[in-house]
Amino acid sequence: MFSILHRVGIKSSTHGVYGALTTLPGLAAWWTTDTRGSTAAGEVIEFVFGTRGYMKMKVIELDADRRVVWQVVDGPLDWLGSTIGFDLKQEGEQTTLLFKHAGWKEQSEFMHHCSTKWASFLLSLKASVESGKGLPFPEDVRISLNWD
Amino acid sequence: MFSILHRVGIKSSTHGVYGALTTLPGLAAWWTTDTRGSTAAGEVIEFVFGTRGYMKMKVIELDADRRVVWQVVDGPLDWLGSTIGFDLKQEGEQTTLLFKHAGWKEQSEFMHHCSTKWASFLLSLKASVESGKGLPFPEDVRISLNWD
Repeated sequence: MFSILHRVGIKSSTHGVYGALTTLPGLAAWWTTDTRGSTAAGEVIEFVFGTRGYMKMKVIELDADRRVVWQVVDGPLDWLGSTIGFDLKQEGEQTTLLFKHAGWKEQSEFMHHCSTKWASFLLSLKASVESGKGLPFPEDVRISLNWD
Repeated sequence: MFSILHRVGIKSSTHGVYGALTTLPGLAAWWTTDTRGSTAAGEVIEFVFGTRGYMKMKVIELDADRRVVWQVVDGPLDWLGSTIGFDLKQEGEQTTLLFKHAGWKEQSEFMHHCSTKWASFLLSLKASVESGKGLPFPEDVRISLNWD
């Protein structure tokens, strides 16, 4: 199994970043404006990307201001069953966010794409928390001409 | 061993992207403005990031307009011996670039950081080829407050 890893440092309290990962308005500000469902533990959050498709994530771990883990329960075939984790720690005036999308069965071209796309969304998360203005879908950064 | 993967699509011929990977001015336009050495097969390219440090890469594979592979011969400890590969293919008006930084011994916090940083530099490469204006060091995107 393979993983996508990322790290960003966000000028914020861990509480501020945790809010961007565990509330519908927080998530809508950096990943997709069309975020639905419930962010409580054991519940399912639905992330809709217009005609591109959607993902449904079950919230399998919540540790306030420290850790959020989702498991993909619906979405792209390569994502099914994989887990997406966010670990937070305070370092001076920065919250360090360590990201891990684990459970990829192969190092497919789609995995390469999703890695770059996650980076741009995590920078959108950083911007949304720091300045109030992220770049969630449909305003997200285009990293190629043929895949969204 | 672990790998960092990325994919970007660049509005260019493969020849144009290959030039950005195999000439000193091409490399200086997206990774660091202070790029030295020789880009020929078997030679060593030196990438200097001011006081942050430097990397030296031996060019171990060149396949014109298709593939470039470097091996890290000097630089951060975690990078030593690792390989960095760029595979190019034409898809319509886009060159698809698949990136792989292979040979990481552990999924360290530094590996998480480098993954996000590579994404931002590959988007800099895309911009430099498409518009002539990338964001090489020292103008590179800051992804955290404490690490460059």
